[in-house]
Amino acid sequence: MKDSPSRHTVEEAQFAAQRLAFGPIMFQATRILRDSGILDSVRRNPGQTSAQIAETSDFSAYACTVLLEAGLSAEVVSVDDDAGWLLTKVGYFILKDELTRTNMDFTQDVCYLAMFHLEEALRTERPAGLKVHGEWDTLYDGLLALPEEARESWLAFDHYYSDGTFPQAADLLLGWGTKSILDIGCNVGKFALVCLNKSSTVTMSLVDLPRMIEEAQSNIGDAGFAERVSAHPTDMLDPNAALPQGRDVIWMSQFLCCFSEDEVVSILKRAREAMSPDSRVVIMDTFWDCQKHEAATYSLHATSLYFTCLANGSSRMYDVKTMRRCLERANLRVDVQHDEVGLSHTILECRIAE
Amino acid sequence: MKDSPSRHTVEEAQFAAQRLAFGPIMFQATRILRDSGILDSVRRNPGQTSAQIAETSDFSAYACTVLLEAGLSAEVVSVDDDAGWLLTKVGYFILKDELTRTNMDFTQDVCYLAMFHLEEALRTERPAGLKVHGEWDTLYDGLLALPEEARESWLAFDHYYSDGTFPQAADLLLGWGTKSILDIGCNVGKFALVCLNKSSTVTMSLVDLPRMIEEAQSNIGDAGFAERVSAHPTDMLDPNAALPQGRDVIWMSQFLCCFSEDEVVSILKRAREAMSPDSRVVIMDTFWDCQKHEAATYSLHATSLYFTCLANGSSRMYDVKTMRRCLERANLRVDVQHDEVGLSHTILECRIAE
Repeated sequence: MKDSPSRHTVEEAQFAAQRLAFGPIMFQATRILRDSGILDSVRRNPGQTSAQIAETSDFSAYACTVLLEAGLSAEVVSVDDDAGWLLTKVGYFILKDELTRTNMDFTQDVCYLAMFHLEEALRTERPAGLKVHGEWDTLYDGLLALPEEARESWLAFDHYYSDGTFPQAADLLLGWGTKSILDIGCNVGKFALVCLNKSSTVTMSLVDLPRMIEEAQSNIGDAGFAERVSAHPTDMLDPNAALPQGRDVIWMSQFLCCFSEDEVVSILKRAREAMSPDSRVVIMDTFWDCQKHEAATYSLHATSLYFTCLANGSSRMYDVKTMRRCLERANLRVDVQHDEVGLSHTILECRIAE
Repeated sequence: MKDSPSRHTVEEAQFAAQRLAFGPIMFQATRILRDSGILDSVRRNPGQTSAQIAETSDFSAYACTVLLEAGLSAEVVSVDDDAGWLLTKVGYFILKDELTRTNMDFTQDVCYLAMFHLEEALRTERPAGLKVHGEWDTLYDGLLALPEEARESWLAFDHYYSDGTFPQAADLLLGWGTKSILDIGCNVGKFALVCLNKSSTVTMSLVDLPRMIEEAQSNIGDAGFAERVSAHPTDMLDPNAALPQGRDVIWMSQFLCCFSEDEVVSILKRAREAMSPDSRVVIMDTFWDCQKHEAATYSLHATSLYFTCLANGSSRMYDVKTMRRCLERANLRVDVQHDEVGLSHTILECRIAE
């Protein structure tokens, strides 16, 4: 029998197991400590007792006590010898770090109740958790009709994970003298706008579901770029859906993670068929095996289950190994792999393999 | 400004914050890895790939992959160079440790959906999460009518945390030559049965809500001890409820954690009034500041929020400091504090203070 490598002592492992077993309870405690202002009160006036904190809060001394004691075990606060509460480094991240806040809001507003149906989603390969928000086949169908809080937290999460990287990615593409970009999965047109602003000549061909294309066109029209843009409303799940031919770059950002491996291969094959010999397929995604920080890998593994439970029931945050296998199956080869783009992205620059 | 002691580097703190932010998602992944048999398959045949594990499981290769990748970040499994999965020490606890299993079932079956209402419970000091199971004022009112899974997980949790300590506690009490015990919060009579079995002369006076007393009497009758037992159906929240006088020991096991601090003091005062000069009040409870293991303190802090959200909205797992303050207010003094009784219990042996 092979040995498992152990970074834990037995006692540490027992503790880690209880952290998992009570994870949902500590999540709620931590979130309420953040949203109630209690954590901020601890930060601003270190050393207050529970009773003192309660005086300037909406909550009773009892409520503050149970929350702060949970926070002690969650390690977001610590307590001094005079029963005074102090913020820890972990608490600082919960309170002030935008990424942590975005992740926590996403878990609460989009995922918490849905995750109770994760097992059903895994058994059926349907996003069975979505029913807590409404009756749709996939999250993308329901996105614009999601309850307000869920929609806002979803958009913040989605945008946080991609927007920051767009300028750097656009510079890379335009630096090749790119004249035309096919943007598959253009969403509401954010990447297109970055390219159109950076270059006065590049043209963009937008591919997405009709509703998204509509919103993208409206955003781009408002910015005065309508004449350099063409729209191609397409359901990429339709294996016969053809793509505009011969663009210099076929760009897919945070798009392939929305599809199963077989669907990824089918999409890549159609992309290859739309290429001219000099075209590049350029994929930007967050691959869990390309992360420098354990926290990033962890976030991606959790996000995979969002895809299972809410998005479509069949896709995930891939590792680059799997993506390279899909590219091979579509007769594409990776020329250059750019790691550490923005927060945690990788760009794969691909050419026709033959 | 006071400094908070830091056991984390910045990077560790960032990771810990993400573990909190995605805690509910990783909880569900880990639980399903356990319940689906995947974790046991990894234990029995180390080094299998996701596809190999899927062959002998109810789940697809996709489902096994997303679960195991989540398990990699949750540290319940690790992966070798050939993409083969191995069980970690944490995974072993999730799979094989009875306490961890009991905690996880309790979180899933009793607490998960209810905890979505924790904020409301904290604001109203009512067990607002209980509504996911039924319409009762407190969990104790609904206990016997809880949905089957929730009831079983509740009972397993409750019993796991107390039953093991009963023989040791009974030996302590009977060792003093105790002839009569007033058992306040007798529940279904488990402690009474231990005492009645250990001593052929001790008499037990049982105090609890009518429904519990009924079940306790039935259990004790079945065991043939009816003639050494008297029943006193009482709601201890009624400040005028009188108690039988002059018993040698007034015993309260895992009982005072079901009441707010003011209620605890009121109960203790009535207990003191029922004492003769030689009587002892003996309290057995799990105090979070008396634990040797961090994992135990953590479990108690999480359990406090169960009391808030589901049990009664106003009680908690106390620290011994708070309990000693309550005893003082009721004119009782702690003679001896016995720590490390059973799993994580403390026994406070108390006398009249004057």
